[in-house]
Amino acid sequence: MDRLNQIPLSMKDIAITDSFWSPFMERIRTKVIPYQWEALNDRVPGAEPSYCMRNFKLAAELTHPELNYGVPRDTGHGGMVFQDSDVAKWIEAAAYSLVWSPDPELEKSLDEAIDIICSAQQEDGYLDTFYIINGLDKRFTNLKDNHELYCFGHFLEAAAAHYEATGKRKLLDALIRYTECIDKHIGPEEGKLHGYPGHEIAEMALIRLYGITKNEKHLGLAKYFIDERGKAPLYFEEETKRNGNDFHWKDSYMQYQYYQAGKPVREQLVAEGHAVRAVYLYSGMADVARLTGDKKLLEACEALFANIAGKQMYITGAIGQSAYGEALSYDYDLPNDTVYGETCAAIGLAFFARRMLEIAPKGMYADVLEKTLYNGIISGMSLDGRAFFYVNPLEALPEASLKDRRMRHVKIERQRWFVCACCPPNIARIVSSLGGYVHSLNTGTLYTHLYLGNEAKFTVDGKEVSLKTETRYPWEGRVDITFTAASGAAFFTYGLRIPGWCRSYTLELNEEKIAPAVQNGYALLKRSWKSGDRITCVFDMPVVLVESNPHVRENRGKAAVMRGPVVYCLEEADNGTELYRLRLGTPGAYSVTHERDLLEGVTVISFAGTREKDWSTDVLYRPLDKPALEDKPLCFIPYYAWANRGPGEMTVWVNR
Amino acid sequence: MDRLNQIPLSMKDIAITDSFWSPFMERIRTKVIPYQWEALNDRVPGAEPSYCMRNFKLAAELTHPELNYGVPRDTGHGGMVFQDSDVAKWIEAAAYSLVWSPDPELEKSLDEAIDIICSAQQEDGYLDTFYIINGLDKRFTNLKDNHELYCFGHFLEAAAAHYEATGKRKLLDALIRYTECIDKHIGPEEGKLHGYPGHEIAEMALIRLYGITKNEKHLGLAKYFIDERGKAPLYFEEETKRNGNDFHWKDSYMQYQYYQAGKPVREQLVAEGHAVRAVYLYSGMADVARLTGDKKLLEACEALFANIAGKQMYITGAIGQSAYGEALSYDYDLPNDTVYGETCAAIGLAFFARRMLEIAPKGMYADVLEKTLYNGIISGMSLDGRAFFYVNPLEALPEASLKDRRMRHVKIERQRWFVCACCPPNIARIVSSLGGYVHSLNTGTLYTHLYLGNEAKFTVDGKEVSLKTETRYPWEGRVDITFTAASGAAFFTYGLRIPGWCRSYTLELNEEKIAPAVQNGYALLKRSWKSGDRITCVFDMPVVLVESNPHVRENRGKAAVMRGPVVYCLEEADNGTELYRLRLGTPGAYSVTHERDLLEGVTVISFAGTREKDWSTDVLYRPLDKPALEDKPLCFIPYYAWANRGPGEMTVWVNR
Repeated sequence: MDRLNQIPLSMKDIAITDSFWSPFMERIRTKVIPYQWEALNDRVPGAEPSYCMRNFKLAAELTHPELNYGVPRDTGHGGMVFQDSDVAKWIEAAAYSLVWSPDPELEKSLDEAIDIICSAQQEDGYLDTFYIINGLDKRFTNLKDNHELYCFGHFLEAAAAHYEATGKRKLLDALIRYTECIDKHIGPEEGKLHGYPGHEIAEMALIRLYGITKNEKHLGLAKYFIDERGKAPLYFEEETKRNGNDFHWKDSYMQYQYYQAGKPVREQLVAEGHAVRAVYLYSGMADVARLTGDKKLLEACEALFANIAGKQMYITGAIGQSAYGEALSYDYDLPNDTVYGETCAAIGLAFFARRMLEIAPKGMYADVLEKTLYNGIISGMSLDGRAFFYVNPLEALPEASLKDRRMRHVKIERQRWFVCACCPPNIARIVSSLGGYVHSLNTGTLYTHLYLGNEAKFTVDGKEVSLKTETRYPWEGRVDITFTAASGAAFFTYGLRIPGWCRSYTLELNEEKIAPAVQNGYALLKRSWKSGDRITCVFDMPVVLVESNPHVRENRGKAAVMRGPVVYCLEEADNGTELYRLRLGTPGAYSVTHERDLLEGVTVISFAGTREKDWSTDVLYRPLDKPALEDKPLCFIPYYAWANRGPGEMTVWVNR
Repeated sequence: MDRLNQIPLSMKDIAITDSFWSPFMERIRTKVIPYQWEALNDRVPGAEPSYCMRNFKLAAELTHPELNYGVPRDTGHGGMVFQDSDVAKWIEAAAYSLVWSPDPELEKSLDEAIDIICSAQQEDGYLDTFYIINGLDKRFTNLKDNHELYCFGHFLEAAAAHYEATGKRKLLDALIRYTECIDKHIGPEEGKLHGYPGHEIAEMALIRLYGITKNEKHLGLAKYFIDERGKAPLYFEEETKRNGNDFHWKDSYMQYQYYQAGKPVREQLVAEGHAVRAVYLYSGMADVARLTGDKKLLEACEALFANIAGKQMYITGAIGQSAYGEALSYDYDLPNDTVYGETCAAIGLAFFARRMLEIAPKGMYADVLEKTLYNGIISGMSLDGRAFFYVNPLEALPEASLKDRRMRHVKIERQRWFVCACCPPNIARIVSSLGGYVHSLNTGTLYTHLYLGNEAKFTVDGKEVSLKTETRYPWEGRVDITFTAASGAAFFTYGLRIPGWCRSYTLELNEEKIAPAVQNGYALLKRSWKSGDRITCVFDMPVVLVESNPHVRENRGKAAVMRGPVVYCLEEADNGTELYRLRLGTPGAYSVTHERDLLEGVTVISFAGTREKDWSTDVLYRPLDKPALEDKPLCFIPYYAWANRGPGEMTVWVNR
């Protein structure tokens, strides 16, 4: 079986025309990507400089003395040690946007960026400005903390995306050379460093490169990074010793599990450590498991996914409960107010879910993918595309964010840009590449994982088939899918995902009710498909109150409101302050309205509720009395849209 | 009106013979005080050295080269900058214990300590080992952070206690000289430093000295410290500038309010900053307000007390919600798990309450005093007197204390001793001086604030009167009080506190029911009292479920169990893990048992309850369903006695 066949449809074969997502994608294309290019070039007035492109220019000048980008040669490296990755993410996002919206201006900026980047590349292929500027003798001496292989991984993603979007090989070839350089220094052979990335991403990025090159060495290096990780003697421990025993996590219970390196990855069955690193690693593990058929590795992936989705994931798809180490913490620990929930971690979870789907089309993976996309990922960006959350709390209290040290990482308003600007370009790259997440072909079956307006084409049974999806999802549960098989009917199975949140639905094929078998969350329709065949799905989309497992201490006595895949919240703008005094009324007593002019168009939910009245005395404690409640209609808005109307309180979980 | 008349009965005039408190006091006397003396002298095997007495010996040797305590002269100062205060607190506690239990051995140790301390005193009266050892030229240059005036204050308390207990003046005279030295350098006059203590206590300690010396300069210095504090130009700000602008709180919302110095004290109406410092200051403010009749100052004290008791105090009497700065946070912010609740802060709150009672006998002050004593103070010490809590959480989770950085200050087991050993000797000094908190005479009225077995004598209406109290409080609500007026009947008002927790009670005088007027929480009986007069109070002591004000977000949907003044908790030892899955059953469905052999004798409460069953699937979220509950009797023990049976979960607030 050619496992590479299982990949999603190419982004080039899908056009998204969706009333929900297209505006997001346009916002990314017209606002975020141009703004980021200015930021990378230190041209945003008032913003702290990024230094990112300046670093590349300086590195190029130092490498090729004949070059002159105007950067004084005695300037140092600026920004974070991983500053290079910012432009890599930008290239990747920009390349995706070119796929669905050609833009010669942007293509020119990309060429310009790539020319500068490539002119900094060393003779042997090496390409990391931090070490080119600070001394190449020190390169590969701190894999654990200095993000060299992290930047490498992001550039691999950028190179692959740029090549796939434009057919241009310049960056791809540069990265193939850089991969050779790394392969020469790191690996299992004697004389090489037996190291691996401190911050993972290169694993999945190498698999992507392998998808293009089919060069077994590229798969091999990814596999090596995964196999070596956490093996005794621990490379990071030895590296730490060589570097003077400076180990940031020595007083932490996490130790090397901060890096998912405390034990071999196949023995890691509980998600631990830095959340973004964790899900990036797991994504790479899933890729390698898929390509190699490594059963132990697959089992670890399954266990890790189950651990996250079943024990460590917020209802919004956010992960990483702890600001300390930006990390996962422990099972069922899900504080809503002090959560980290980094936007990048939710994005990484979507990567992981997508890769698990590529291995086996199971609804549980698509459910998590959908949950992150409609909630914990897009909550990271303001509706005007100009400001971003790094941290995505499920409960916000302005006074606490100001005065409570436990919540100093929790911002009440999105920020323009970060010194560590990982999240904004990460949102840009996942939203711009959304087309790659919608459908996949798996051994002759076409699966639809996400419902959004699009036209996609694919080849099956030797025929070209296209399908057009029309829907007002996530606000409405009706989805119309029309097939076109221009070169004649094609025999194949079509797998429609029945969303995990959906309790009842109807399916019609050419206006006749059908009840196909549902397997692993997908309704399977095996037939000969001809032009004009039309499926109509109606997923009932009532308002649902959701409770959390009794093991979760933070949500006792509370419920969250969901409708379809969308998690809702209460905001101060609609409901006043002290949201914790509110209670949900009788389930069922609600109304649903789509508000075109609110928050770029959202469906809001009004729910009967009550508010605890003030006591007649202002004592702090009193003998338990019947609660004095006053009626108070509760107005819920989609969680992703919170914090777009000035600072204020917010909560997802509401007393019941 | 001689305001000094309003002070409590002298400890010498009361003998405590109480089934609840006497064992605590004996434990302090026989275990804590001797252990601390060993610790202060670095003679506890395995414990980190205190350096406290060694510092004094070294300071003495440097001052008087003829002395030889055997400390090498090139040894530096050891321990914290405020290490001196440890022996001061020990002297104070030991002196109190001598009052109620003469002990020649202990008296000898005290003399030895005082001889060493006094031999370190400088010609001009100065007495702080940190600066004597490190360079006297630097003294008084960092009042804000170096605790010089804090140690001074603790020594004033020690000196007064030692003088009152033994009649010996050596330490008292040394401290009078030290006071003169400070008065020479600090004060309103030109050429003096316009400073005040960074960590308060000297204010109330100077008032105590004034009570002995009647020297107006001593009252004046206390008043100066209070009047100058927070005035512009801010002394601490200028000192910070002189010291190179190193200001630890520059990024904090607290700024100089960490030290209660952000504005003049009379304008401080909300309790803020470091909790221990805050209540120590407020205690001194109350003392000065009482003695000077300063109305603005009194109003500030009343506002601050009301703010704490009405908006920032845990049900246990703990204060200081935030580990960051060991500080108060903001109104109604009362997290149970990440609370700081330093034992010393609860003790300081008791000091403050006692002083407010001295100004005006109001039940609200005595209620807080009683609450701290039976809950948040004695929770700081293990029942064997050998281990101590610095932090007193209302909810404990072993896994969180290990893995959750927000709770790294929350220990699950009491510790033997601390590098910063403030809490153990502070418990010792308040418990040893409990006699001073029980009754007070206020302009001809004798008030009883606390109910515990004791015999007290006092002079009123020119007659000597004594009263004997017999009770099994706090386990039983009956209190018998017998008067003896050996030199003939005495006419006065007796004020009995009706505890705030008490909803119904009966009073009998000589076996006849009476219903005297109750004013400000005290039942007032005005009559001619003769020998054999006997009051019997029966305070009904049902189990009460308590809820917290709707403004408190942390306790929504929960209740705490109290009986009398005692706050109860659930512990893992009795109730298993995941205490947050438990729910209180029908109020009223409980039984109360006194267990002689459990936890040194406690009354336990069994309450009908339920436990949420596991779900049939292990998903993290599901549509809200009827809860599947199983019956589960809940066993409550007194909060103060938790963590005496190994590590485990604990919670005060329980779902209802």
